[in-house]
Amino acid sequence: MRKRVYLDLAAPTPLDPRVLEAMLPYLSDAWGNPSSIYAEAQQARKGLEDARRTVAEVLGCKPQEIVFTSGGTESDSLALRGVAYGSRRRGSHIVTSAIEHHAVLHTAERLEQEGFRVTYLPVDGEGLIDPAALERAVGEDTTLVSIMLANNEVGTIEPIAEAARIVKEKNPHTAFHTDAVQAVGTLEVSVDRLGVDLLSIGAHKFYGPKGVGALYVRSRTPLQAQVLGGAQEKNRRAGTENVAYVVGMAKAMALDLQGVAASSGSACTSGSLEPSHVLTAMGVPLELARGSLRLTVGIDNTREEIDYLLEILPGIVSRLRSLSPTWPEREAAGAATEKPL
Amino acid sequence: MRKRVYLDLAAPTPLDPRVLEAMLPYLSDAWGNPSSIYAEAQQARKGLEDARRTVAEVLGCKPQEIVFTSGGTESDSLALRGVAYGSRRRGSHIVTSAIEHHAVLHTAERLEQEGFRVTYLPVDGEGLIDPAALERAVGEDTTLVSIMLANNEVGTIEPIAEAARIVKEKNPHTAFHTDAVQAVGTLEVSVDRLGVDLLSIGAHKFYGPKGVGALYVRSRTPLQAQVLGGAQEKNRRAGTENVAYVVGMAKAMALDLQGVAASSGSACTSGSLEPSHVLTAMGVPLELARGSLRLTVGIDNTREEIDYLLEILPGIVSRLRSLSPTWPEREAAGAATEKPL
Repeated sequence: MRKRVYLDLAAPTPLDPRVLEAMLPYLSDAWGNPSSIYAEAQQARKGLEDARRTVAEVLGCKPQEIVFTSGGTESDSLALRGVAYGSRRRGSHIVTSAIEHHAVLHTAERLEQEGFRVTYLPVDGEGLIDPAALERAVGEDTTLVSIMLANNEVGTIEPIAEAARIVKEKNPHTAFHTDAVQAVGTLEVSVDRLGVDLLSIGAHKFYGPKGVGALYVRSRTPLQAQVLGGAQEKNRRAGTENVAYVVGMAKAMALDLQGVAASSGSACTSGSLEPSHVLTAMGVPLELARGSLRLTVGIDNTREEIDYLLEILPGIVSRLRSLSPTWPEREAAGAATEKPL
Repeated sequence: MRKRVYLDLAAPTPLDPRVLEAMLPYLSDAWGNPSSIYAEAQQARKGLEDARRTVAEVLGCKPQEIVFTSGGTESDSLALRGVAYGSRRRGSHIVTSAIEHHAVLHTAERLEQEGFRVTYLPVDGEGLIDPAALERAVGEDTTLVSIMLANNEVGTIEPIAEAARIVKEKNPHTAFHTDAVQAVGTLEVSVDRLGVDLLSIGAHKFYGPKGVGALYVRSRTPLQAQVLGGAQEKNRRAGTENVAYVVGMAKAMALDLQGVAASSGSACTSGSLEPSHVLTAMGVPLELARGSLRLTVGIDNTREEIDYLLEILPGIVSRLRSLSPTWPEREAAGAATEKPL
């Protein structure tokens, strides 16, 4: 049987066996509700708080600044809606970029419908925002700036430390959020070195389980909770805590990830035939954007797998072109072409 | 070592080993993103959709009417906010009861702050709503009624089928939501027999994992998504799907739960010293509400455990009384008393 080669590590990564091993006790024995008071619950609470300390150490923050969520998407949603509504008395202007993940962009669009004003910064051909444009965009009524750390389609790493400094100099009351879902596990992420007030992570992008994430919220950042109910997560996110997954996430962040090669440059995809909003914002022509393919390597990939990929890639290109409604039909059969992939 | 007796089954139940067994493949091998297109992803998608069919069968609805969430709290939040905002053009009045879970009550309070009008129906000494009061409360601008199926503190089972019929007769456009988080696993729950449009469940209350739940949404019910991003769950709930937990939840629902004795009557608690809003709404005096204790049995409890409990209960009562700031000090040492527990 031909070995399968997995090169979509920017989508969910496989669960590391060591992560599963760390999670199992909390799936079987330590099943109490961490907000209750008896022994079973105390065991679960210890797992939860140990995990919180581990995540805080990785990000360089205080444990109480970590809010566990159901994943990167909810972290982004909580950051945007939480700060927008939590700071509404101070202003109603938000700044973000045109190449953010849909969790940020669609939430920003919803906030526009609800009366907020949103500025979408353009990017250049490399996917980078223009710091001067960011400075012009921030005003007295700007309560939040949200710029991603590493783009999930093209791998562009935005100059977050510089951007955060510019924003704070222009308006010290503006909170700075960065979506680091795609960055944690491949880049070193320190909230102080970045100078951010909020930072989203999702465990399934770094060998942890799907369905858990966290939002770093710097002390004194105004944040209105979005999922209401019990007093979990210091009233910032209600709902019985998913201890096993939180423990799994902490284990995945604690693992030594040296040797991981991150995706970078312009190798990209979307599972659908819709042209990518990221590539469009970067000025990539429609027919190239539609024929694009995102390849990302992870800790288990080998050189042989990459060689194998290069061998089969021409066939894949032909197939993608034959699927593309904008590719000229005469080239659809797989004829060689000088056009870039 | 003395055997520990767990009698708080109305809080999270332990994860059934058969449930864990069903989840494991999705935690290790089948780790693809179910929204992607390759084989790993197809395996995950199959697990997700099989689970969706199982949950739909248990509730007696169509698979596409099931939206997976991160738990009962998020299900309640999505139901209330989703319908309130999804039906805003038609009206801004919501009816609920005074003894709902905080996931419903705190969300209703937030909606009040955002301009909605909320009627909180009172309950009688048994915790039951008055159907006549419900009928009076529903008007032309009522878009949503949310009444829980079984109360999580006192076990009262509300007359949901009757309530839903009354609401629909008064205003056929009003959506009816029931929080069945505490009921699924102990009561038979059929959305058609109940006549509800939305129904919340959370897996950890019926031997499934903590951190996953579902919301049943009857076709054509107006629902505005609350967590935005990808197109998962037919645009009703964004975020990479937690396949392992969803599979675990479906397995827990599919298990034969005959022989489960549900909590009922007036045995109740809260982990804090705050008097319960449920007991207060039922007219229980403050000093009794503060001295209350919730005991719930599950599939693993034995008669011997109950005998053991009865033996040690007087000591527990004394301890609770000594903690209660409203109990007369002269009785705090544990003297016998004729007052009810």
